[in-house]
Order: sequence, then structure tokens, then C-alpha cells
Amino acid sequence: MRTLITNIGELSTCTVQLDGSAGIIRDAAILVEHDRIAWVGPVDDAPTEPGGYVEVDAESRAVVPGFVDSHSHIVFGGDRAAEFEARMAGERYAAGGIRSTVAATRGASDDDLRARLRGFIAEMHAQGTTTVEIKSGYGLDVETELRLVRLAAEVTPEVTFLGAHVVPAEYADDPDGYVDLVTGPMLEACAPHARWIDVFCETGAFTVEQSRRVLEAGIARGLAPRVHAGQLGPSDGVRMAIELGAASVDHGTYLTDADIEALAASDTVLTLLPGVEFSTRQPYPDARRLIDAGVTVALACDTNPGSSFTSSMPFCIAVAVRDMGMTPAEALWAATAGGAAALRRDDIGMIAPGFRADLVLLDAPSHVHLSYRPGVPLVRQVWKDGVPVA
Amino acid sequence: MRTLITNIGELSTCTVQLDGSAGIIRDAAILVEHDRIAWVGPVDDAPTEPGGYVEVDAESRAVVPGFVDSHSHIVFGGDRAAEFEARMAGERYAAGGIRSTVAATRGASDDDLRARLRGFIAEMHAQGTTTVEIKSGYGLDVETELRLVRLAAEVTPEVTFLGAHVVPAEYADDPDGYVDLVTGPMLEACAPHARWIDVFCETGAFTVEQSRRVLEAGIARGLAPRVHAGQLGPSDGVRMAIELGAASVDHGTYLTDADIEALAASDTVLTLLPGVEFSTRQPYPDARRLIDAGVTVALACDTNPGSSFTSSMPFCIAVAVRDMGMTPAEALWAATAGGAAALRRDDIGMIAPGFRADLVLLDAPSHVHLSYRPGVPLVRQVWKDGVPVA
Repeated sequence: MRTLITNIGELSTCTVQLDGSAGIIRDAAILVEHDRIAWVGPVDDAPTEPGGYVEVDAESRAVVPGFVDSHSHIVFGGDRAAEFEARMAGERYAAGGIRSTVAATRGASDDDLRARLRGFIAEMHAQGTTTVEIKSGYGLDVETELRLVRLAAEVTPEVTFLGAHVVPAEYADDPDGYVDLVTGPMLEACAPHARWIDVFCETGAFTVEQSRRVLEAGIARGLAPRVHAGQLGPSDGVRMAIELGAASVDHGTYLTDADIEALAASDTVLTLLPGVEFSTRQPYPDARRLIDAGVTVALACDTNPGSSFTSSMPFCIAVAVRDMGMTPAEALWAATAGGAAALRRDDIGMIAPGFRADLVLLDAPSHVHLSYRPGVPLVRQVWKDGVPVA
Repeated sequence: MRTLITNIGELSTCTVQLDGSAGIIRDAAILVEHDRIAWVGPVDDAPTEPGGYVEVDAESRAVVPGFVDSHSHIVFGGDRAAEFEARMAGERYAAGGIRSTVAATRGASDDDLRARLRGFIAEMHAQGTTTVEIKSGYGLDVETELRLVRLAAEVTPEVTFLGAHVVPAEYADDPDGYVDLVTGPMLEACAPHARWIDVFCETGAFTVEQSRRVLEAGIARGLAPRVHAGQLGPSDGVRMAIELGAASVDHGTYLTDADIEALAASDTVLTLLPGVEFSTRQPYPDARRLIDAGVTVALACDTNPGSSFTSSMPFCIAVAVRDMGMTPAEALWAATAGGAAALRRDDIGMIAPGFRADLVLLDAPSHVHLSYRPGVPLVRQVWKDGVPVA
């Protein structure tokens, strides 16, 4: 199956950091063959074989790569709307609220969790997300964590085992005992279904020492590391993550100069999650400072019922531009190529021959409208692996 | 034609300020006859006449009134994406940018403007807006202002003549001469097609004295007043608007204690426009202080290519909750019943017998999700005057 998308007013390839005309082709076309991009260039040079492909006329609209959302927690039961309302009325966010979702998740059937998960996937497709990483972490016992990674693996190859999300109530007096469980039987059960090992290295969750144990056990079991750190305060977790070769440190609201220097000198991506600061009223991290220091920055939604229930990458782009000091072009790159870097993927996040045909046609003349028109559903059509999904 | 919407998990009637269970019916149904709501109540009490109506199963989802967006500028040519990018890179917003849209609007054909306008209406319907006020103000000459009010009148009864949007370049040296034009031949041409007279009373636009002249001329010609004031700094425009009986003062970012006291003692609504502060990085007005002082607050998008290009009432609700101190319930009321008050309408903005059947079915169990899930397109189905429009 071949598809030719023609009359693209502005094509953001994201093969380089967009800057002026860099990474942008005006009046462009894309040829898709099966699940891959076969050709990209000016519309006047497009291959012509009448009848050889389905033709889609973009009518001068903009095309961007499918968004790569490298951080989500979308296998869970219940919601926490009441906690959100209380927070908006003045209560502070605390990691402990996770436990209420754990109770709802343990009580939900696989069918319930699957229906909910598939609903989120459809919702994400409709908003232009074509790749999503999904974490476990609302089970916190062997049986439920296994259910969660298995369910996640039904819908994405980017499955993360996050048994070390928070210490469950039943281990409140024995956190190290819980780490033994996570690094022992729980890891053994979940590792065959996951690609990544993750830990919430934060006050109220796991110490740097406990986090290191979790990550090293995961690495020994063949999983690649990524880390939640620096959300609620500065910590040594960032440098520990870099030292262990983490693909990404996520959150990074609180970073020291030494953290930033270490990130810039490493292959570790810093993934910013604007929905979290929006929904918890915490201070926004300064993406400008990070980018200027040479850190590779990604954007993701962190879709979860506690600290960030958005699943909208366009919304995260708009907030990153308004409140984190990113340019619209930097935010788009971070939401596509940046997300791919955070997942160590070289087949997604850019529009170039050989890449997967994950494409978003916007109801707008430019990618700038993703932040210029906040909240407006501008995603008109979405292809994943060359197949329309929205 | 009759429609019964059943199994509504949470129905926000907005007939009173929502608070706890006030204004909320759980497990509700709505009967629609032609363009009006005929009955509202618990699903168990719903009228039963097999075959007597189309039945819609809300499957426990939430229903809210159609949003009443009482402030927009959606008849214009061109866009100002480059100005937006420059602002995000550090430039300040100034009212003068309006002139670039005036040039593009004067140069656009009626067909071009109409197609664009209808596109915005469809986009608004899809986001749950069932009533929109539309201002002229990008013509600034008699011929073009007349074109704009006529085009607006094709799609809404809430047409506002805003010849006094800004002083056009050709009158830069003679602003009072421009006020003569607005209050003379321009008003004469436009008044038959409009319900409202408006003026941008602000530094860089019109003085309080000029604004008073414009409003009084409009009132004498049978139009009802509404005013832009307090966007860029405090001004006496707020109290002048109240004195003239304005239905609404819009923006109100900068208000004195005396302004707030006067608003609370009046029938004038204060319409907040969160998209403007979001897109210009100006400080957010303190809705909490206004509501606690007894001011009636509405929320609107102010859709325009300069200071706020969102058309998403759900987005505005989310920002009002996060950054203006409103509760989710207050923000919903302000976006529905509040907007109706700002337009002095008693047939829209609430769900009760006799009101227009303007209804939004959300893909969520509660109206709280409008702010709990920012940016996510939660609007599943929309009826305007009893007819599905999205």
C-alpha cells in the first residue's frame, strides 16, 4: 500500500532542531510505502505514477511527525477528581495519593483495565500521539504488576516496569522489604513483558540508594533504565541516573547546575512534563536554561490520575512555550524527535526516508499554531505505520 | 421532534451556582422537544412513551449546558503567528498589532471571510460552544465594518459593532475625527445588523471620554453597551461602563477596589478571558477576589488572531481553575450561565424546562474533568436548539 500526501504547506521534518528554515520544507509531499516513509521533498519533485497510490491533498496545511509520548501511566482503575478539586482549593500535591489508585487498580478486572487503556490509546491517537511509553506501578504486588505490564504490552512495545512507584501501604514500615520484593519476584515476573526499568526517586517514594538497587537489578535482568527524579526537590538521583546510563531523567523541575552540566555531557535526555506543573501548581522548570546549556529535552504528558491527567501533547507543547521558555519549534522537536531520543528509538520522531510513517496532518498552516491556538483540537488526520488511526 | 437523553451520570444544570450537590442531578435524564428542554429530572422519573422520541444513552457520562462564549472576534483575514512567536521570544503585547489584521481583513473577499468564519463556528461547536458573540472591528472603515457585522449576523444573533476597536493608521493624527466617523456614518450603517455597541477603552486605543461618546451614540441608536476595559492597566472605563448600564465589562485584569465594589453593586458582569493572559503572558486576574466580593463573573475565549487565538471554552475553564482561583464548578457556571448573563439572555446557559436545548455530553463522568484533563477534547456530542451540531 502506498500513500502520497501532497500540497503540504509546511512540513516539519524534525530531522534537525527546527530553526528558521532548518528542518522545514514548504510546499512539500511525502510518499509512504507500507509502514515506512519512502520519499520526502518539494511537491514539484514528487514521484508521479497515476493510480500507483492513494493521494491525500493536505490543502496547504502543516504536517508534523506523530508525537512520541515517552512517559505515561495509563493502566489504572478509578480516578482522583476529588483530590484534584481539593488541590485546586489549596491542598499540596503529595506522592502518597498514588496509593488510592493502587487500591482501585487492584480491584479492577483485566477487562475493565483493558477497556480503559484502549480508550486512552484512541484518545491519544486522536491528538496525534503515535508512540506511547506505558508504565506499570499501580499494582505494587507481584500479581497486579504482572497484569499491568502484560496489558501495556498489548498496545505498545515501550513497556516500563515501575514496581518502585511508591511503597505500598502494607510495606509502610518496611520499605527495604518492598525493594526486596521489587528486585526479586516482581522483577522476575514482569521483566519478560517490559523493555524498561523505572523508579520514582523522590522524598515520599524511594531514596537514591533504594533507587540504585532497583535500577541495577533491572539492568541485570536485561531492562534499560529511566528514572523519575527532581520533581518535588533537588536530589542526587539525577546524577545516579546518568551514571547508570538512563535513557531519560523525567520531571527535572529541581536541578542543580551540576545536574545540568552532567546531563549536557551525557546521552541522557531530560524529559519535561508540563502537565504536572500545570495540574499541581508547582513551579515550571526552565527549559530555556536547559536547552542553552546543551541538554537534550523531550516533552511528554505523564498521563496519570494524580498529578497530570492530560493526554494532549499539543497542550503540553503550548504550556512548554508559554511557561518553560521553549520556542514553538523547540517544543515540537522535543515532542517528536526528543521523545524518540528519550526512548532510544531511531525509527520514529522524524519525517525522513526509512522512518516509520507516523504522521500528523494539522488543521493549521504551521506547527506554530500548536502553541498559538492552545486547547483547540487541531489534529485533523493521523497515520501510524502508514495506517490512518484518527 | 423529541429526544430523551438518559443515564446521565452527572447533570450540571447551572440553574444555581454549583456547590456540593446544588445545581447537580445524578443519574438524570433530559427530555427535549423541538428546540427546547421540556423536562429535567432523575432518570427513574423520566417520561416513558415507547417510540415517542429518539433515545440517547449517556452511559453514565456528564452533561453540561452548551458553553456561552460572550466575547469573540472571528471575522478577519490573515493570522499573526509571527507576532505570537516574537512575543513568546520576549516582545510585549501591544494593541497596535490589530492594524495588521485590519489590512488583511480589508483585502479579503466576503467569501474568504465567510469560509473562515464558518470554520471557526464549526470548531466552536465541536468544543461545546452553542452561543457565540461576534464583534466587528477589523474593518475600521464604513464599508468593511458593514461587511463584518453582516457576515457575523449570518451565524449569530449576538453581533457587536466594535468600530472603536483601535484608531486606524489613516486617522493616527486625528483620533477624535475617527470617533466622529464611528459615531456617525459607521454606526448608521452597522446598527441595523447589530445588537451591541462595544469600545476598546485602553491606553493605545480609546480614552474614557472617547469611549463614552461611542457608547452613548450606540445606545441612542438602540444598541446595548459592553466594554473592553482594564486589560493593560487600571482605568476609569470600568465605572463609566457600569454607569452606562453595560451588560459586561471584559478583561478586567487590572481593577481597583472601587471598581470591584461598583461591579458587585451593579448588574454588569465581569467577563474574564483566560486565553488572553495565557497567550500574552500578562498577569492573571484574581477571580477568587471578584467572586468573593459578589461580582458576577463570566468566562469567554476572546478568539482573535492577536492576543488569544484559542476557541476552546474547556481550555479557558482549565486555566481559570489553575490560574485565576476559580473552583471547577464556578468556572463551569461562568462559562455557561455567566456567559448568558453577560449577554442578558434568559433562554440559554442553564438546563431547565423552557430553556433552549443547548447541551454538551462529555466523555467524562463529571464536569470537573474539564479542568482535571486540560487540553483533552472531552466534548463527545453537542446539541444546539435540540439539533446535533457536533
